[in-house]
Amino acid sequence: MSASLIGLDWGSTHLRAYLFGADGKAIESRALPHGIRQLPAGGFPAAFALAIRDWPVLPVLACGMVGSRNGWQEVPYLDTPTGVERLAQHLTRLTTPTGHALYLVPGLHDPHRPDVMRGEETQIVGVLAREPATTRLLLPGTHSKWVRLRDGVVTDFATVMTGELYGLLRQHSILGAALPEARDDDEAFRDGVAAARDSGPAGALSRLFSARALMLDGVLDPASVPDYLSGLLLGEELRMALAAGWTGAGDTIPMVGEGPLCDRYRRAADVFGLHLSRAPDGTTADGLWRIAGAASLASAPTFTAHSL
Amino acid sequence: MSASLIGLDWGSTHLRAYLFGADGKAIESRALPHGIRQLPAGGFPAAFALAIRDWPVLPVLACGMVGSRNGWQEVPYLDTPTGVERLAQHLTRLTTPTGHALYLVPGLHDPHRPDVMRGEETQIVGVLAREPATTRLLLPGTHSKWVRLRDGVVTDFATVMTGELYGLLRQHSILGAALPEARDDDEAFRDGVAAARDSGPAGALSRLFSARALMLDGVLDPASVPDYLSGLLLGEELRMALAAGWTGAGDTIPMVGEGPLCDRYRRAADVFGLHLSRAPDGTTADGLWRIAGAASLASAPTFTAHSL
Repeated sequence: MSASLIGLDWGSTHLRAYLFGADGKAIESRALPHGIRQLPAGGFPAAFALAIRDWPVLPVLACGMVGSRNGWQEVPYLDTPTGVERLAQHLTRLTTPTGHALYLVPGLHDPHRPDVMRGEETQIVGVLAREPATTRLLLPGTHSKWVRLRDGVVTDFATVMTGELYGLLRQHSILGAALPEARDDDEAFRDGVAAARDSGPAGALSRLFSARALMLDGVLDPASVPDYLSGLLLGEELRMALAAGWTGAGDTIPMVGEGPLCDRYRRAADVFGLHLSRAPDGTTADGLWRIAGAASLASAPTFTAHSL
Repeated sequence: MSASLIGLDWGSTHLRAYLFGADGKAIESRALPHGIRQLPAGGFPAAFALAIRDWPVLPVLACGMVGSRNGWQEVPYLDTPTGVERLAQHLTRLTTPTGHALYLVPGLHDPHRPDVMRGEETQIVGVLAREPATTRLLLPGTHSKWVRLRDGVVTDFATVMTGELYGLLRQHSILGAALPEARDDDEAFRDGVAAARDSGPAGALSRLFSARALMLDGVLDPASVPDYLSGLLLGEELRMALAAGWTGAGDTIPMVGEGPLCDRYRRAADVFGLHLSRAPDGTTADGLWRIAGAASLASAPTFTAHSL
């Protein structure tokens, strides 16, 4: 299979490179630790050269924070509603020192809230490639995204900083710092989720301190505080998603994300009686391929002429 | 005026010492940087000796984190409802290396949430000394406390970690780290408050990311992000307080706390059409004196016999 495209999933902390065959399957893929906050000496060009080393010179399509203000080149956000065609029409091109034509996928901007995403738009396109009828999507992560779609177009979305808040509270707050080594405690996790669910319209921020009070009461083992806190924050995200109409009783929302995190969300959803399913892996690569196709980046066989 | 009591307001980051005259007024007061997390070599006894240096040997009453698990001696929390008499009946006594009888005020535990406070119970007693009919109270701070009282007794309370959350987001998060030097921006503050007020039952956690989106949009000056974030979090606290019934339209809630912070809360309350007033200063000293009186620590003139 001749190679026809290079794809880059280039975020804050990771850089994944895909060498696509003409059928859109990855012939080879690489993971480097050179997210845009962890660049090697030589910066973006050096990281790029490492990522594509020994690969043929092909068009390159990149998504993620590489197109942010602190990225290689800033690519303006596109307002919702936006689908794959509009993304493909607004790629930004730069020429690398290695002579590659590198195209950057724009992020999305929801003017209602306002809110932004960068990288997730490509994952969403990847989901749509397999499930064109998707109308709701959850991308759990440091900054979870709840997404609404219509006819394959993202209409609006909201970011919830659950993962980042958990990290801050775990590492730096009176609740989470100075705890003994954590242990997995599913019951504490579910108790936290339930506390958030039962916090009513006041919300779980008003219950955060219960993590400390329960520990002082001897009800919550200090080693289980992290799971309780995780449950409280994931529960708050679900409570908010319900209150804001991102999900409702009877819905099944597909999730795109890492396995253990998606599993955690599914356990939290259980406590609410909600249903979250898991979308297949590989959505970013699929999305890159699909956007490249819509932009006719990888369609011409000439791209493989000077390859391998 | 002969001295009759020493009072200590001993928290995590501060130690204030009061030498009370027989009329309950402070003859002298001292502020030391030796909160229980910043003790000098020699620990609690050394900090204590510095605080009372040159003062007569008198009974000592101390409130705050000095009575916590990480304090000089742990004093169990008292469940609500609790008023000044019950606090006075449950002082824990220790004898210091200097030969002082040191009494520790217990903190309060609200079993409903659950929730805890340590130090604020003494401030509340101080407010009641002047305004016995107080039924609601707000103590803004790192951990804000919303308090309900009946007949001079604390019936229930809730902690909101607004100040700590602000500090975490400001120092360590994607929203607040790496900003240029902040500038005061009342409009950004009020915009943040309004965003929280208008977030509905979903709550302002779902709007946190707007601090970043508005900045990327060019609508919010990076130097104004801290005030916007502060407004969003204070607004969320007020939204919660309304949703949970801690305050309502037409109420005027007295606040106890530092001037600039109380002013900030008052500005946030304006945006909601709520009313927060400021209680007079000196509530901790007043509270210590009142608890000491209820415990008959400072009433006998013999306490001044071996003094000055």
